[in-house]
Amino acid sequence: MTSAAAVKSADVELTRRAAKVVPGGMYGHQAIRNMSAAYPQFFAAGEGALITDVDGNEYVDLMCSWGPVVLGHRDPVVTQAVRTQMEMGDCLDGPGPVLVDLAETVVDVVTDADWVLFGKNGTDATTACLTIARAHTSRSVVLVARGVYHGAAPWCTPVPAGTLASDRAAMGYFDYNDSDDFDRAVEAAGSDLAGVMLTPFRHVEGEDQDLVDVEFARHVRRRCDERDALLIVDDVRCGFRLAHGGSWEPIGVRADLSAWSKAIANGYPLAAVTGQEALREAASTVFLTGSFWMNSTPMAAALATIRRLGDIDGVSLMRRAGARLRAGILAQAADNGLTIAYTGPDVMPYVTFSGDVDRERMTYFAETALRSGVYLHPKHNWFMSCAMDDAVIDRALRGTEVAFAEVRKRFGPN
Amino acid sequence: MTSAAAVKSADVELTRRAAKVVPGGMYGHQAIRNMSAAYPQFFAAGEGALITDVDGNEYVDLMCSWGPVVLGHRDPVVTQAVRTQMEMGDCLDGPGPVLVDLAETVVDVVTDADWVLFGKNGTDATTACLTIARAHTSRSVVLVARGVYHGAAPWCTPVPAGTLASDRAAMGYFDYNDSDDFDRAVEAAGSDLAGVMLTPFRHVEGEDQDLVDVEFARHVRRRCDERDALLIVDDVRCGFRLAHGGSWEPIGVRADLSAWSKAIANGYPLAAVTGQEALREAASTVFLTGSFWMNSTPMAAALATIRRLGDIDGVSLMRRAGARLRAGILAQAADNGLTIAYTGPDVMPYVTFSGDVDRERMTYFAETALRSGVYLHPKHNWFMSCAMDDAVIDRALRGTEVAFAEVRKRFGPN
Repeated sequence: MTSAAAVKSADVELTRRAAKVVPGGMYGHQAIRNMSAAYPQFFAAGEGALITDVDGNEYVDLMCSWGPVVLGHRDPVVTQAVRTQMEMGDCLDGPGPVLVDLAETVVDVVTDADWVLFGKNGTDATTACLTIARAHTSRSVVLVARGVYHGAAPWCTPVPAGTLASDRAAMGYFDYNDSDDFDRAVEAAGSDLAGVMLTPFRHVEGEDQDLVDVEFARHVRRRCDERDALLIVDDVRCGFRLAHGGSWEPIGVRADLSAWSKAIANGYPLAAVTGQEALREAASTVFLTGSFWMNSTPMAAALATIRRLGDIDGVSLMRRAGARLRAGILAQAADNGLTIAYTGPDVMPYVTFSGDVDRERMTYFAETALRSGVYLHPKHNWFMSCAMDDAVIDRALRGTEVAFAEVRKRFGPN
Repeated sequence: MTSAAAVKSADVELTRRAAKVVPGGMYGHQAIRNMSAAYPQFFAAGEGALITDVDGNEYVDLMCSWGPVVLGHRDPVVTQAVRTQMEMGDCLDGPGPVLVDLAETVVDVVTDADWVLFGKNGTDATTACLTIARAHTSRSVVLVARGVYHGAAPWCTPVPAGTLASDRAAMGYFDYNDSDDFDRAVEAAGSDLAGVMLTPFRHVEGEDQDLVDVEFARHVRRRCDERDALLIVDDVRCGFRLAHGGSWEPIGVRADLSAWSKAIANGYPLAAVTGQEALREAASTVFLTGSFWMNSTPMAAALATIRRLGDIDGVSLMRRAGARLRAGILAQAADNGLTIAYTGPDVMPYVTFSGDVDRERMTYFAETALRSGVYLHPKHNWFMSCAMDDAVIDRALRGTEVAFAEVRKRFGPN
C-alpha cells in the first residue's frame, strides 16, 4: 500500500485560507464536505488518467473531473487546438469561424441535431431546452423524473434553499422507467404539456443506477407524439461517453431537443443545445446569451475533442476500460466475500455495498482506495476516459484490491 | 475614407454556412441581426485595442467584446498567466490553489466583499444573488428597475419567449432613480421584501444612460436597512471599469451582495458573487455549481487581470481614454452642426442623435464609422479599455470624423 494522501499539509493550509474567503469553505459538487474529510480539496495537475493533488499525491482519476475529461487530462490534441486558437482570437465582438466548423461537426455527428447553439453550463443547456419547448408549444408544463439532476437553476436544483415554489410551478414529476406513473403525470398536465425531459438512464447521486427500459423510452416518445409535446434528452452527463451520436442513438428513440455539456470539450467550458428542424424557429425566438458564449477557445477544444473521439472510437475505448474495471472489481469483491451492486453502464459505473447502513463500508472503501492511489467517489457515479488503457485500469484495480481487503478486515463479509 | 469592411466575402460565406446549422443564423447579443447588416458577424483576431474580422478588416474596438476586454485583447500578462496555468491543471476533481489566491485578492480589492464564490455567466451571478437573498431573509420579493438588464434567465430575460409569468412571480418593478416609485414598490412587497437589485447606473440598450442619483442610492440603502432587506448591486457590466473596488465604492453606498462577470478576467469565462459577512451562512446553504466553475485557467486570468488593473491604475487610464473620446466626439458633432446626447460615464458612453426617428442617423453613423475602421454599436453603450492610449483614441476619432461628416451630408443638421 502506497502512502498517497498521507501527506496533506498544503491542502490543509489552502483549506484554512479558503474557509476565510469562501462561504462554507468551498461550494458546489466538488466541495469535499459532500464526500469525506479524508479527501484532498485542492488539485495541482492532471495528465492522462492521473491527477495530482497539491501535496504531490498522485491518483488514478476515476471521476474524470466529474465527467468533462473524456480523452484524458491535458489531452495533447485538445491542448494544441486551444493554444492555436489563443494565438488568434477568443473573446471578440462576435464568434470566430470555429463556431461554424463546430456547429457543422455537431450537426453531422449527433443523430438528432439539425441545428445547435452553445452556452457555458449544463444548466444553460437544460434551461434553454425547457424555454425552447415552451416557446414552440405555447404550453407550460415540463415533466421530469423524480430525483433526477438537471442542473442547479431554481427550477431544477436538488437543494431548495433560496428558491420558491413558483420556480417549479409548471414542473411535473414521475418515476423513471414507470410508464403508468408517467401516464398519470401526462394526464395531470392535460392540454398544457410542453415537454418531457429525461436523462439517458437514471443516474441519481446516492442511489443505484437504472438503465433505461427501452419500452419506457418508446412509450414516452409515443405519448409526446400523441400530445404534440417535445421529448428533451438531458445528455449533459452522458453525452459523448455512452454513444458518439447521442446517448439514445443505440436504442433509436428520437429526441426533439438535447442538452449537452461536460465531455463536449474535454474540460473546457462549453454547453450546447441541439434540436430537430421543427424546433429551429422557436430556438431563434428565445433570447439565449452570455458574455462568453461566443468564446472561440472552448469551441476549438470541442471541435478537437469530438473529432478525436470519432477518430479513435473513444466510446469503444471507454467501454473496454469500463468492462475491465467492472470485471476486476466484481472479482475482488467476491474474493473478499463482499456483496456489491455494480450498476449503470460500464463507462459510468456506480458501486454500493449491500446492506451498507449509513454508507460506512463505501466511505471506508473510498478512503482506503484514495490512500492506495485511486480517486473515486463514495456516492456518485464514476467516469471512464479514453486515457484509461489496460495498465491504468490494472493500476486502479491494485488500489481497489487493497480497499476491498481493508473493508473485509474492518467490517467482515456482508 | 478607408475601405475597411468593403471586403466581406469570408463573412458572407461563414454566414451562409451558419444559417444552415444555427437557429436564426446566430444567437445572443452579438447576432448582427440586432445591429445592422453592414456589420461583420465573424471575427478572426484581436490585439490590444484592435480587432480584425474574418476578411482582414481591422477596427478600433470600442465595444471591447461587449465589456469583457478591459486590459486589451490578448493582454500579454493575462495570456501568460493562462498559459502557465494550462501547463499545470485546469478542470480537475477540485479547485486549484489559484482559487484561493483569487478569492483573497477579490476580498482584498472589493470594498463590500467578505467572501466570494465563482461561476461562469453574469446570469449565474445575478441569479445566485437573488437566491442567496431569498435564503437569507426567508422572503420572496426582489425589486428591480424597469427595463434594466440583469441577465438571460427566465426571471430576468428582456425577451419573454418561452418564459412563464410564474418565473417572475416574486419580482417587483420600479423606475430607476425614482425614490417615490421605489417606495411604492417597497410598500407593495410589504413584509415579503427579500431584496433590491440595482445596476450601478441605468444602462439600457436603446436608451440614453442615467448616472445614479446618489440620494436615490442612499434612499434605497436606508429602506433596505429599515426592512431588513438586502441591497444587491449588479456590477456585471460595470465592475472593474467604473471603480476598482466596486462601482458604488466612490459614492459610499454599501452592497450586501454584488454580482460580477465580464471584465473580471479580461475575456475568460468567469463570474463571481461577493457578499458581506452576514450573508456568508446563506451563501453556503444555496447549491451553486456548474461543471466548469472550478476551472483554474479563467481564475488565473482573473487574478492576473485584477492585479494588473491595480498595478497600472486601469480605471484612471480608461477614464482618460473616455474623456478624450467624449471631447473629440462632442467637438466633431458641433463642427458638423449635429446635436447629440453623450450619456453615461466616460468609460461606458452611449451616443444618440437628437430627434433621430427610427435611429436612421445613428445607424448610418455606425455603418460609416465601421467602414472607416471603428467598431461601435448604434444602440448599446460602448466600453473603454486600458489599451486605448491617446493614439488609439485619435485613430478612432479620425473614423468618427468621417462618420459625422457623412451624417451631415446625408441628413443635414438636426
